[in-house]
Amino acid sequence: MEMISGGVTKPKGYSAAGIYAGIKKKRKDMALIYSAVPAKGAGAFTTNIVKAAPVNWDIKLTKESDFIQSIIINSGVANACTGEEGNKNNYLMASKVAEQLNIPVEAVYTASTGIIGKQLPIDIITDNIAKLVQELDDSSEAGLRAAEAIMTTDTYTKECAVTFNIDGKDITIGGMAKGSGMIHPNMATLIGVVTTDIAISKNLLQEAVSSDVKYSFNMISVDRDTSTNDSLLILANGLAGNTEIREKNQAYDIFCKALNMVTTSLSKMIAADGEGATKLFEVTVKGAKSYEEAATISKSIITSNLVKTAIYGNDANWGRILCAMGYSGADFDTDKVDLYIESAEGSLKLVESGMATDYSEDLATKILSAKEVKALADIKQGFEEATAWGCDFSYDYIKINADYRS
Amino acid sequence: MEMISGGVTKPKGYSAAGIYAGIKKKRKDMALIYSAVPAKGAGAFTTNIVKAAPVNWDIKLTKESDFIQSIIINSGVANACTGEEGNKNNYLMASKVAEQLNIPVEAVYTASTGIIGKQLPIDIITDNIAKLVQELDDSSEAGLRAAEAIMTTDTYTKECAVTFNIDGKDITIGGMAKGSGMIHPNMATLIGVVTTDIAISKNLLQEAVSSDVKYSFNMISVDRDTSTNDSLLILANGLAGNTEIREKNQAYDIFCKALNMVTTSLSKMIAADGEGATKLFEVTVKGAKSYEEAATISKSIITSNLVKTAIYGNDANWGRILCAMGYSGADFDTDKVDLYIESAEGSLKLVESGMATDYSEDLATKILSAKEVKALADIKQGFEEATAWGCDFSYDYIKINADYRS
Repeated sequence: MEMISGGVTKPKGYSAAGIYAGIKKKRKDMALIYSAVPAKGAGAFTTNIVKAAPVNWDIKLTKESDFIQSIIINSGVANACTGEEGNKNNYLMASKVAEQLNIPVEAVYTASTGIIGKQLPIDIITDNIAKLVQELDDSSEAGLRAAEAIMTTDTYTKECAVTFNIDGKDITIGGMAKGSGMIHPNMATLIGVVTTDIAISKNLLQEAVSSDVKYSFNMISVDRDTSTNDSLLILANGLAGNTEIREKNQAYDIFCKALNMVTTSLSKMIAADGEGATKLFEVTVKGAKSYEEAATISKSIITSNLVKTAIYGNDANWGRILCAMGYSGADFDTDKVDLYIESAEGSLKLVESGMATDYSEDLATKILSAKEVKALADIKQGFEEATAWGCDFSYDYIKINADYRS
Repeated sequence: MEMISGGVTKPKGYSAAGIYAGIKKKRKDMALIYSAVPAKGAGAFTTNIVKAAPVNWDIKLTKESDFIQSIIINSGVANACTGEEGNKNNYLMASKVAEQLNIPVEAVYTASTGIIGKQLPIDIITDNIAKLVQELDDSSEAGLRAAEAIMTTDTYTKECAVTFNIDGKDITIGGMAKGSGMIHPNMATLIGVVTTDIAISKNLLQEAVSSDVKYSFNMISVDRDTSTNDSLLILANGLAGNTEIREKNQAYDIFCKALNMVTTSLSKMIAADGEGATKLFEVTVKGAKSYEEAATISKSIITSNLVKTAIYGNDANWGRILCAMGYSGADFDTDKVDLYIESAEGSLKLVESGMATDYSEDLATKILSAKEVKALADIKQGFEEATAWGCDFSYDYIKINADYRS
């Protein structure tokens, strides 16, 4: 099992396109993914009760469609809080893709990201779908263009791919995603697309995704705002030629492990590219009585504005970390907590049994000044652990969000 | 019932002092409140399981002491995460006050605010208590000095007082408070002190406070960080001469109403002076099935970083408000929501039945540019409502918190 370069076009049978249609001012704003053969589709979606039109459409398709063959995505406008007109526009977008690709409309997942409350510029979108289809291509460059086209305030594209082997067959999973504000997923991040050529039953594909997001996309947070559009979509077209996975056997476990490499990798890219972020902040809580408890505490730390601003300032203000652990809702003995920080610059124990060690502030500042900073809290209550990923909180978060729409 | 100028020294029998002792670099850092006669004491405290030494002390006294006669407060160091030494220092602080005032140590509430994880400079504190006692004075100026001495990153003092009449007796309630970071109270704000000369039983005093914070201090948020030191302390010394309130009669209701004027007023001052805040943001949710539901939704709006940055940017990005309502956990029909904004500059309906009205962006920006901005969401599910207070999110929040300790 190894990471390879590339993204959604790496598995067999997938092509992609990304173009500038004119929804946004300058950057690419429409992406299309296509599988040469019908694929199993599964997904994980926002828990926000305010759900965008494409989210409701995808949830319906995930339940009812026998196969999915394409994913159309636009950035710039989220098609959320848009009422019946929003549903109609979403359907028009899917229909136009279906017509051009000669597949059923129920085989077309949709996703939109951008401003909430504005109607899609549906003419611009439908007028450009023929062009998108024309540009479909199975090269890595085409995958990259699609990854570019789904970005909003992201500062770089997010792609990755993994290959592995089951029963002598080479299998590939590819993915792309976009952040980078309104990121506090509770079922998936804003938009994540995963393609694979593995042969697997629809039920097990869905189960693998539902279980995976708990450890990947749902463990990142940029700003605690759970978006209306969060969607993780996955297609599995079976072209790798393995015997279809229909039970939770060893092949299923291998697939889950590879899927987690892709989703965790994309999750970390999203966290590191959080709006205004200058560094990735990874927090592991160990010694918990359950995974859920460890996850609750680690997410409380990475979501604290006060912790995030201290990390931005390279300030080892560990009191804020203990404070955030304390209000997380988890029950533990604060007098037992050990706390460590670590980066390429070194590592340090800041807290032992709930109180400061005699650590060097200079070394702590040096450790925190790295581009990737880790914190580890050992609460000594049990044997479970969880890791969450976030970022620091800088002036640029305010700048980006104080006037996003203009 | 009317608001009057002044603070904790307004009710009969209370004196106060505030001095610079040298815990902080420059500003006043120790405050003392004293009641000439024993008073009933009650309080509301942080729900963070990491509780500062003074919080644990006050909780014990509130349960066990027959009367309270003094409150000693220091700023600069929070005495949180300080282990046994922290408890010992807290006791030394209370003992020294008890000795100087010739009252039992169990009659002395304590409070500390500032950096977590650092031991109190206990010699500086105990050396200055005699001076504090000497400076006790019942003037408004002395009350103001106490209010100054409890500030940390606050930019102005927070005081208020209310007078009212029960059975022909003039009764007064005075208060002071401090914010302004780590403000997401869940039982009380960082430090609030309320004094009154009303005669009331200890049980009813506690019940009045416990019930009140639900509508006042617990409805404000600056940064969603629930502090380790949140404490609201109240003393009632009976010097107004009314018949002691021992049941929930009309007099009790009048007292609760007056108390709420004081606590709400202090709460709004704290929200408006949130770290880096440029304006007060008040959010009312009406048409809810219960108060709790309305409170959940309104707090979700005022705590959203994306809403707060939009308010800072005078940007009527109402989609973020609906999004924050949607992930609040409350259940409602988003297609029914009406949303209004209002300030001294005018008022506007932004959303009707979940979708944008044809409002003027220019007028919306003008309304949002005021120093006090209100939003009202009508969810049309029932007849209950709740109001929460927060502030916008500016560059200065990052500046203040990226390197608080230096």
